[in-house]
Amino acid sequence: MTLTIPVLSKVPNLLKELVKVAPNVTFHEVADPERDPYFKKSEILICDFDLLGSYLYDLPNVKWIQGTWAGIDKLTPLVSKPPPYQITRFTGDHFGKIMGEYVVANIVNYERGFFDVKNSQQKSQWNREGKIFDYRVIFDLTVGILGVGNIGNRIGQILHFLGAKVMALGRRPVLPTDDEYSHISKYFTKDTLPQFLKECDYIVNVLPNTTETNNLLDGDVLKHCSDKQSIFINIGRSNILSETSLIRALNNRWLSAVILDVFDVEPLPESSPLWKMDRVFITPHVAGLSRAKDIAEQFSSNFALYKKNLPLSAVVDFTKGY
Amino acid sequence: MTLTIPVLSKVPNLLKELVKVAPNVTFHEVADPERDPYFKKSEILICDFDLLGSYLYDLPNVKWIQGTWAGIDKLTPLVSKPPPYQITRFTGDHFGKIMGEYVVANIVNYERGFFDVKNSQQKSQWNREGKIFDYRVIFDLTVGILGVGNIGNRIGQILHFLGAKVMALGRRPVLPTDDEYSHISKYFTKDTLPQFLKECDYIVNVLPNTTETNNLLDGDVLKHCSDKQSIFINIGRSNILSETSLIRALNNRWLSAVILDVFDVEPLPESSPLWKMDRVFITPHVAGLSRAKDIAEQFSSNFALYKKNLPLSAVVDFTKGY
Repeated sequence: MTLTIPVLSKVPNLLKELVKVAPNVTFHEVADPERDPYFKKSEILICDFDLLGSYLYDLPNVKWIQGTWAGIDKLTPLVSKPPPYQITRFTGDHFGKIMGEYVVANIVNYERGFFDVKNSQQKSQWNREGKIFDYRVIFDLTVGILGVGNIGNRIGQILHFLGAKVMALGRRPVLPTDDEYSHISKYFTKDTLPQFLKECDYIVNVLPNTTETNNLLDGDVLKHCSDKQSIFINIGRSNILSETSLIRALNNRWLSAVILDVFDVEPLPESSPLWKMDRVFITPHVAGLSRAKDIAEQFSSNFALYKKNLPLSAVVDFTKGY
Repeated sequence: MTLTIPVLSKVPNLLKELVKVAPNVTFHEVADPERDPYFKKSEILICDFDLLGSYLYDLPNVKWIQGTWAGIDKLTPLVSKPPPYQITRFTGDHFGKIMGEYVVANIVNYERGFFDVKNSQQKSQWNREGKIFDYRVIFDLTVGILGVGNIGNRIGQILHFLGAKVMALGRRPVLPTDDEYSHISKYFTKDTLPQFLKECDYIVNVLPNTTETNNLLDGDVLKHCSDKQSIFINIGRSNILSETSLIRALNNRWLSAVILDVFDVEPLPESSPLWKMDRVFITPHVAGLSRAKDIAEQFSSNFALYKKNLPLSAVVDFTKGY
């Protein structure tokens, strides 16, 4: 008898990729969890967190759910007490690498004004005015990363390899002295946030949505960016500052530009003033896509651990919020 | 008496940056070489190659010219016999790093359709259709680099660090087995060009303009790209293929897109059909800008060698064409 694992997900091609990494398992696509013959009876599930929500306490046999998302914010409001089974987030190297590419491309696009270059092209104009002929490169820049987990570190390592001075801000008072953090030239905590902001050419947020990260950049704190007129890249969560604070920081030139992938309400409503602002680039929450291929790979390595009764990787801890 | 070094260059802020690295030297900006009191008498010069051209054989005292350009194509047609002094090109790590960022950003921009995302933003549209929700990342890709000098290698090292499979094509029959080339998983020469093209998702050209690189990709050879429908990035020189061949390769879907920084005639004439083509991104020869700061740094390290009578770095060899 082969094991059947129900998959409740909107990720394109997920079953196809799962079959490739675990050919001996039967993966079963769940259309309607209520009527599905396997969903509520299974020991292992693979789920998008937004679809899992209402079934959290209604899965008597489940021992392990492999999530397809990194953020658990869709689950936390529903969790009164931690469920009696393990949920693993989709994380690890993939997200960091994918988001690292996003950060690099957006820095280069901004520094070299590539969107303006594209506009010139549309007018058949060979235009070397402005940034495109006098730009900063990554090895000129100091980039501060909010968050020192897997994702933040991988992004930092990439930027460090490209020559940036990389700083980071996290929760721990000090960082362990191991290779994982060797790219970080200066480490900060919440208490030293103003100093961190003062030194950053770019601020990259990858922090999760937790009570500790709520409003971290709200109020006047971004004033500390005004010397460097930093650029803010948000690929973490939007709870770190309100749209109002963000717009104020842009209008006051505390920030010279923002690149945003995450918003309080998604899709970002058409009425948001951010859409039409000059120094704003908006991407529709895709900086760190959960790609079928990568999810399958993480499932496969966790599945190997699970079968050997070893600790799984990226187990959600609801008390920490990730 | 302090040494006076004439500087004949249009690079913005070059004198300012030179003074920073060599405070004991007097740098003198040359407006008109013919009337300049120092230009023709000096032992050392710093020059843009296009401005140097007509004075090549009219510099009786010169021993060393530090160029500010990487390519010597503006000089070669004027060189009957190699001049009796050393010319150093501006090269080294800087160009490779700067062009590496360009390549990374352009790969990400194309794979994620960032120009389309920007268009959606201008219409206040949260649009997750198409590439932006199902994209390839660098660690999915095989990138082939035409050229295995400093620049090509640095670009390759960056792509390798980001997880790409990196291949290269060069002149030497085999590459030395040292660290400089350890990022290259497969090496090709002109004879194996078709095989190289067959395997590339991206082809990045950094080859100089020489008789050996003339028309390398002309004719039908790009047909070998049709399986992968490669993307071609040209930041080397345009002599590698004609505009006609390029457009044919796009129209035949041998190539799915091209990113071009170099052209037969620059500025690219308004009449070129490339401007308005859908799958073309044009940048005005700025992928590897000669930045004042970086030129000053290279001058400074060569100057230190020069004073000690040691061999300079990046000395032009007119018989090789770079």
